Amino acid sequence: MMDGERLQSEIMSQGDAVRRLKGDPQATEEEKKSAIEKLKQLKLDYKTVTGKEYEPAGQTKDKKQKQKNEKEKAAKTSKNQEVKKQTKLGIEVSKDENCAEWYSQVLTKSEMLEYYDVSGCYVLRPWSYAIWETIQSWFDAEIKKLGVSNCYFPIFVSQSALEREKAHIADFAPEVAWVTRAGQSEMAEPIALRPTSETVMYPSFAKWIQSHRDLPLRVNQWCNIVRWEFKHPTPFLRTREFLWQEGHTAFQTKKEAEEEVLQILDLYAKVYTDLLAIPVIKGRKTEKEKFAGGDYTTTIEAYIPVNGRGIQAATSHHLGQNFSKMFGICYEDPDSGGKAFVYQNSWGLTTRTIGTMVIIHGDDNGLVLPPRVASIQVIVVPVGLTAQTSEEERNFLTKKVEEVTSGLLGVNIRAKSDLRDNVSPGWKFNHWELKGVPIRMELGPRDMKNKQVTCVIRHSGEKRAIPLAGLFDAIPKILDEIQNKMYKKVLEARDEHLKMAKSWSEFRELLDKKNLLLSPFCGDKECEEKIKAESAREDVTEVGTSAMGAKSLCIPFEQPAEKLPEKCIYPHCKNKPQYFALFGRSY
Amino acid sequence: MMDGERLQSEIMSQGDAVRRLKGDPQATEEEKKSAIEKLKQLKLDYKTVTGKEYEPAGQTKDKKQKQKNEKEKAAKTSKNQEVKKQTKLGIEVSKDENCAEWYSQVLTKSEMLEYYDVSGCYVLRPWSYAIWETIQSWFDAEIKKLGVSNCYFPIFVSQSALEREKAHIADFAPEVAWVTRAGQSEMAEPIALRPTSETVMYPSFAKWIQSHRDLPLRVNQWCNIVRWEFKHPTPFLRTREFLWQEGHTAFQTKKEAEEEVLQILDLYAKVYTDLLAIPVIKGRKTEKEKFAGGDYTTTIEAYIPVNGRGIQAATSHHLGQNFSKMFGICYEDPDSGGKAFVYQNSWGLTTRTIGTMVIIHGDDNGLVLPPRVASIQVIVVPVGLTAQTSEEERNFLTKKVEEVTSGLLGVNIRAKSDLRDNVSPGWKFNHWELKGVPIRMELGPRDMKNKQVTCVIRHSGEKRAIPLAGLFDAIPKILDEIQNKMYKKVLEARDEHLKMAKSWSEFRELLDKKNLLLSPFCGDKECEEKIKAESAREDVTEVGTSAMGAKSLCIPFEQPAEKLPEKCIYPHCKNKPQYFALFGRSY
Repeated sequence: MMDGERLQSEIMSQGDAVRRLKGDPQATEEEKKSAIEKLKQLKLDYKTVTGKEYEPAGQTKDKKQKQKNEKEKAAKTSKNQEVKKQTKLGIEVSKDENCAEWYSQVLTKSEMLEYYDVSGCYVLRPWSYAIWETIQSWFDAEIKKLGVSNCYFPIFVSQSALEREKAHIADFAPEVAWVTRAGQSEMAEPIALRPTSETVMYPSFAKWIQSHRDLPLRVNQWCNIVRWEFKHPTPFLRTREFLWQEGHTAFQTKKEAEEEVLQILDLYAKVYTDLLAIPVIKGRKTEKEKFAGGDYTTTIEAYIPVNGRGIQAATSHHLGQNFSKMFGICYEDPDSGGKAFVYQNSWGLTTRTIGTMVIIHGDDNGLVLPPRVASIQVIVVPVGLTAQTSEEERNFLTKKVEEVTSGLLGVNIRAKSDLRDNVSPGWKFNHWELKGVPIRMELGPRDMKNKQVTCVIRHSGEKRAIPLAGLFDAIPKILDEIQNKMYKKVLEARDEHLKMAKSWSEFRELLDKKNLLLSPFCGDKECEEKIKAESAREDVTEVGTSAMGAKSLCIPFEQPAEKLPEKCIYPHCKNKPQYFALFGRSY
Repeated sequence: MMDGERLQSEIMSQGDAVRRLKGDPQATEEEKKSAIEKLKQLKLDYKTVTGKEYEPAGQTKDKKQKQKNEKEKAAKTSKNQEVKKQTKLGIEVSKDENCAEWYSQVLTKSEMLEYYDVSGCYVLRPWSYAIWETIQSWFDAEIKKLGVSNCYFPIFVSQSALEREKAHIADFAPEVAWVTRAGQSEMAEPIALRPTSETVMYPSFAKWIQSHRDLPLRVNQWCNIVRWEFKHPTPFLRTREFLWQEGHTAFQTKKEAEEEVLQILDLYAKVYTDLLAIPVIKGRKTEKEKFAGGDYTTTIEAYIPVNGRGIQAATSHHLGQNFSKMFGICYEDPDSGGKAFVYQNSWGLTTRTIGTMVIIHGDDNGLVLPPRVASIQVIVVPVGLTAQTSEEERNFLTKKVEEVTSGLLGVNIRAKSDLRDNVSPGWKFNHWELKGVPIRMELGPRDMKNKQVTCVIRHSGEKRAIPLAGLFDAIPKILDEIQNKMYKKVLEARDEHLKMAKSWSEFRELLDKKNLLLSPFCGDKECEEKIKAESAREDVTEVGTSAMGAKSLCIPFEQPAEKLPEKCIYPHCKNKPQYFALFGRSY
């Protein structure tokens, strides 16, 4: 398809999107603005490519005449020029300068995500969904080893079940979506869509658990969740529907339950460190931030260098006996003969994982995928062919590319060859770079002569010649090396921005420099609200920083070695600090 | 826990369920009736076990005194007696006499399913969900080999997208559930929950497909679907929320699309024949029964011997260009230079698979699982231990049971040993029989002496002694044999009830004898409606038969060898028959 026409069609569909957003009362101002900006950019691109202003079809000229003009122009365009123009479709803003726009472009242009006409909902394309599948298959196998079984509970919750635990519903109620109509019939009672499944599952738990022999009960489900947030939505990071797993377990003793909470937290940490190459800090949530209705929440928190924000990566809750008492989940105690209530946990990991990975590892050239979750780890591209290359040489190279690719597949490397003949090697380089493939392997006549391949490492840009002899031993090692280096890079950036702040002035100053802060804290809910309110900034001068106030991310399990100061970080607080808490601007 | 108390608690929770159903305007009369019957049965059981009428707690006596009485009674009950009583919790009606009640009991007592307080929604417990996982992992691998990628689209559909294809929405509109409220806010526009995802996905397809190089596009998602049916709900078979996969693909040519339709239908057939041991008939749906908005629908149809009904097992649709024209899914034709619309397919397989398997293979003792989908294929149980058995002998047997189990696991048999010491072997036999495990393997002192194990085959009840030497070769073969025999048994039952009917009197008579009928048919929609209306019966005398009229199940690909008669099966029809169609009462 010709570039002009493609842009024209993109402009038309973007125009539709803008009109739709303008008419959508749920769309935020930022969404509208970003859609309009995209439209403007497309029109600029159109002008660059076609040399004339974009005009809506059928407005000024005979459309057919126009199409004819386009076609003639396209016919003149050589393949090479077309390729060059297509590379314009790469990322057009820098991550540091406009992180929000960069994030949106990376997601759409790498083909991870498509925007959708219901605000806060997005399409997960195969390139991102494959990452979710990798996370699923690893985590699912791990919890099955622990004795957890999968199951499926309905998405619908009756109002009475949803409202059984008061603290729980108080927290979720503002975001619950309600079905009130089926076909043309109004329902007698509205039915909620699950914002989480405690209240969905626990009436069944009460039936299934009768004796201590029915314990432990450990189930999990992979499903969609609906939370109709009214804050600004962001793909993967804050969405109205998302995918997750939710584990729900019941034990005879508090001890067993508490052990599991930490086992699961460890698995969550491994998803981040081992699969996604992202370091996390383990800790406990404060009273203000804990899961509503639970006893306490453990969490892993990641750091996003580009904007200095923390992000909650996954949580594992100990619910104590709160829900079991509300839902009557009890058994005959074999010792006392009386009723005993079970101890429960719930724990969840969401598709937020994917967004966190994108925003942490991505760069100005697009996505950067850690090898362990990349659905293509090595893309093999033939290079160095010219018009002068003989048919024989061409065939030999193609055969060699296929040989190398199947050799890599043979040692369980997810490899693919790109043998397309309608795009240039340069276009392919940009394409796979944008999509974040960890290793690009180039094979050309010169490489053949030197009995080598040329590898380009996505995350560092480094180029390496690797001898063909021993290639299938070398590549797995290089992939491991990439995985480790990507992790280390983020770890260093995180550690550089993990600061101790013992005074309020230090706290405010360091916060504005994209730091996470370890500060003495009393743990009080109201004190935390004041910290948040008073650390917000009114003026936003520095690019890439945020004006919001600091939240507590967690109380790190690993506390600083030094002695806890006498005073809480909030200057007007009269309470004694209980621990060092980790504060930061956050998602 | 004591039997009396357990029953008391079950009565209480069943009482709650009955009250809930009575107050639920969405609950059907049949649901209420069945719940009340279950409550009565529980009270009868209570009387049998405790020797006195059930009285609600706190009504006539001091509750504590009562509990004390119960406890004393329980203390007197020997372990063996308790076990005996528990076996009463098996299936209490015969499949032939009351299939609906039998089906409900099998599902709940085998721990496949739990009823739920939103009508038409059910809980899939691990024992059934594991079957879905087996089907998923097999089918998912097969479609990936074909080049299909997984993705995820939102559950929400805007009204405008949903209503784009008129014939499509006309069919689905009466069952669409609408979200109209979030938290306390009324939405400006109601948002639908997907009844299927054509209208969700195709606006994105229109963006992604620009050139013929973007084709074929082949995606699939595993997700939940909501269709708010107002007919009587049945677990797995007709539910308001269900799980499925839906594949959506776009091709340049009709030929490619049509080839895929049949490739997928073949895979669906294999899910039934190879995994679930159920024969199916492949064919095309009539105009009346085809997917709304598509060109034509191919289907596989199964036969349910117990009630003689047909059941649609899975469908694969060729959509032609209907949706691509509505949604503007087109590309520049490289030959003509003009716009060309893509050819599309969609295809789906649901959790109905599980219900079909249960109702076809189950018997009066409970579930019967085909080995290929059983999450436990062999349950190993120690037997023959008495009070006289020495500690040494006991330990030796336990060790042997564990050895055999891990040997089976070693040859990839899903085996498990049941070493519980609080229930008798007899109780275990009933338990695993109820849950449908294909092979029960008994190991006792006598077996040890004879260097053998005793196997009991679930589906036939047959008992076989298998020498320990060569056991790990023998068992995989026996599992294959079971799978084949289960298939063959259903095939024979189906073929016995697959009859040719060329006259209307024959048609009506054979239909009432639980047959599926091959009859000459003109294909006309109105003619089909008349066949349905006039084959319904007003009087229901025979147990287990249904009064509903016959629907066309499909036009079998494999047509009878004999010549098509001159007249359509419907006596007043003036049209010429086009083919033999398969008719039957159906789900």
